[in-house]
Amino acid sequence: MASHDCIVAYEPATCEFPIQNLPYGVFSTASATSPRVGVAIGDKVLDLAALAAKGLFNGPLLADCATDLFNQPSLNAFMATKPEVWAEARARITELLTAGAGALDEATQAEVLVDMADITSHMPVNVPEYIDFYSSRTHATNVGTLIRGAENALQPNWTAMPIGYHVASTSLTVSPAKIVRPWVQTTSPTDPTAFSFKPEPALDFELEMGAFVGGPANAQGVPLRINEAHERLFGLCLFNDWSARAGQKASYVPLGPSIIGKSFISTISPWIVPFAALEPFAVAAEVLDKPLAPHLRDDNHIVYNVDLSVDIITPGSNGEELPITRSNLTYLTWTHAQQLTNLASTGAPILPGTLLATGTISGPNREQNGCMLEISKLGKDPLVLPTGEERKYIADGDVVVMRGVARGDGYQIGFGETRDVVEAALPPSFWGIEE
Amino acid sequence: MASHDCIVAYEPATCEFPIQNLPYGVFSTASATSPRVGVAIGDKVLDLAALAAKGLFNGPLLADCATDLFNQPSLNAFMATKPEVWAEARARITELLTAGAGALDEATQAEVLVDMADITSHMPVNVPEYIDFYSSRTHATNVGTLIRGAENALQPNWTAMPIGYHVASTSLTVSPAKIVRPWVQTTSPTDPTAFSFKPEPALDFELEMGAFVGGPANAQGVPLRINEAHERLFGLCLFNDWSARAGQKASYVPLGPSIIGKSFISTISPWIVPFAALEPFAVAAEVLDKPLAPHLRDDNHIVYNVDLSVDIITPGSNGEELPITRSNLTYLTWTHAQQLTNLASTGAPILPGTLLATGTISGPNREQNGCMLEISKLGKDPLVLPTGEERKYIADGDVVVMRGVARGDGYQIGFGETRDVVEAALPPSFWGIEE
Repeated sequence: MASHDCIVAYEPATCEFPIQNLPYGVFSTASATSPRVGVAIGDKVLDLAALAAKGLFNGPLLADCATDLFNQPSLNAFMATKPEVWAEARARITELLTAGAGALDEATQAEVLVDMADITSHMPVNVPEYIDFYSSRTHATNVGTLIRGAENALQPNWTAMPIGYHVASTSLTVSPAKIVRPWVQTTSPTDPTAFSFKPEPALDFELEMGAFVGGPANAQGVPLRINEAHERLFGLCLFNDWSARAGQKASYVPLGPSIIGKSFISTISPWIVPFAALEPFAVAAEVLDKPLAPHLRDDNHIVYNVDLSVDIITPGSNGEELPITRSNLTYLTWTHAQQLTNLASTGAPILPGTLLATGTISGPNREQNGCMLEISKLGKDPLVLPTGEERKYIADGDVVVMRGVARGDGYQIGFGETRDVVEAALPPSFWGIEE
Repeated sequence: MASHDCIVAYEPATCEFPIQNLPYGVFSTASATSPRVGVAIGDKVLDLAALAAKGLFNGPLLADCATDLFNQPSLNAFMATKPEVWAEARARITELLTAGAGALDEATQAEVLVDMADITSHMPVNVPEYIDFYSSRTHATNVGTLIRGAENALQPNWTAMPIGYHVASTSLTVSPAKIVRPWVQTTSPTDPTAFSFKPEPALDFELEMGAFVGGPANAQGVPLRINEAHERLFGLCLFNDWSARAGQKASYVPLGPSIIGKSFISTISPWIVPFAALEPFAVAAEVLDKPLAPHLRDDNHIVYNVDLSVDIITPGSNGEELPITRSNLTYLTWTHAQQLTNLASTGAPILPGTLLATGTISGPNREQNGCMLEISKLGKDPLVLPTGEERKYIADGDVVVMRGVARGDGYQIGFGETRDVVEAALPPSFWGIEE
């Protein structure tokens, strides 16, 4: 579909939000301050609450409930419906935005299309449960090699199941965000029993994507089979899993990295791209050289071809973005459907709005590594930037930008971006510590 | 205060809910099906929503908002206020229940007191974040000794900070509950790289308590100091952290036990006892033989003297409860305030309703151990019950009952109980596996 088929003009070669995308978000404006559901199209946002108020969702599944689903401060109500409802909404939005007899008329357009430059994005989902997986074989191998050597890089359970851990969903926020460097306890390099409390010396990003789960919750005690898991997958966002590496190292044995290393803040892109928009980019996911447990076998073992990038703006770069990482979602080995099936395999109830973060998505080469821990080899090999600045980890004042793009035939699908700035830690006086 | 000082008659020697207790819960009845906030008193429940509707919360902080706080399906709104509001509510409820000029008149009593036998208890809190700590030194030592030997029982970080991990708050439910034995991947005892998918062979309870956090959330990036953490502590419940030991063992390295071992279900008692009711039972908490990091030092280093018990009803016990464990909350080393301070030390925002589970609370002797993993020494030394039945872990059909009691001068404080029954796993056919 060419740009001129859409009632909103855009440049297909560069626009992140063509009519093939239609990602969901939650927004408000200065003149209408209630957060509500919108869809990005070109440089506009389509106000779905306004469409619903006008009765323009007239299909059989949405006619009676569109306002209840879209005049909401989160996507949860819409996510909690079923794929048939998501499909009807997407088809109707496509129809209303496609030039021709079914399109929005100009008067209505003026009421329901908002300039993207004028919106405030809000956290689009009230996340009941957030799991950070560890599902890129390349990433797990890179990290395992650094810690245990190449022979034992992957621990035995890595190839048996998509391992992961819960993180505080209360730490999630929509980007752009300020990342205040946390205080943590760290261990001495020479004495692992000696701890000191200080601003995190090794603040890191992690390049991830997040899959949102929709659909009605399964009952407690009733797992999801993998075909049912596929039906629950709603959409994808970009995900920066900010990490406090020294605090993580000191605290994570044996219960995992969550409370100190991971739960201070993580950020997501403002737009959630429905999996329906990503179907043209589906490719076969990596097959592990090991038989899978029955519940994890999948006739539809797919992942999506999405280019992922990290750029950094430093105090020395004069506002210029310096490339750090170029990776791709196809480095994800355990798929979103396998992650969800494993998560629910015990009978845990999975509520709509649950976020499955992929874990860092890395390729094998340094310029494909998704976090500074890999890039700097545990901080031992600093990255030298074009400005001459060096980075083992992220410095105060740095801005970290993540983007994703699926490249189609004459169009591309984007997610917006995460763009977070790192601020200095609180002073010692906050804690009553003399400097 | 003697029983006859309360307008509800009870036997002080045995009643869990005397006027000194006044625990909060959420309940409904067959004739009034909307869940709302109540307080247990004797064998009655005081309907706080009904009190509010009658304007009986007439103090300066509650007069204008009591209905908004108590005519709610959860305690979150009330918890989100401040300790001054909690104190005003508790003082007013005490006044209304104390025989004398300020007491509820008989006509009003008939409207606002409900027989406890007639209520349905609901999950009393919408929990935004649930952390399972590991804060009983005796328990951590017992488990560490079983796994690594007595010399290395406690890992270095255990004495530096209250370690813990996030678990899915969506898995929390109010007791009584059915515990469906989960399917998990387990490792072979002879080959740690060989996994098989089966019903969990080592289903376990964990005797814990849970501290609920109230008060307004701290801003992202602004930690809580320990005196501020004390101000946020709302109340305590009993907590059974049901655990899938074989699944946990196979999945927990290196990211922790949460998604397979812990997140299928955990249960809490229906009543949350305010810390104000526990003040008479405060005792000095254990002091570790090691200097603390500055943020964890506490001039008010207290824990509460609460006797804790686990009993089991087996298919062979003819309904009789068989004692398994007798422990006490004073085996908690890292206190609730230290747990909360550590959790928030990175600047993580802590929302009202957050649940801090203590981790298993064990004494040193077998009959004081808070889970079967300790009691049976990793399943190697079965417990022989008075019925002649043996238990390494919990069997299908077993009912596990937990209780807590703080013993005062002429009265006692209880929490209700958790009483959960274990059901058989789903059949292999659920997964399409041939038997």
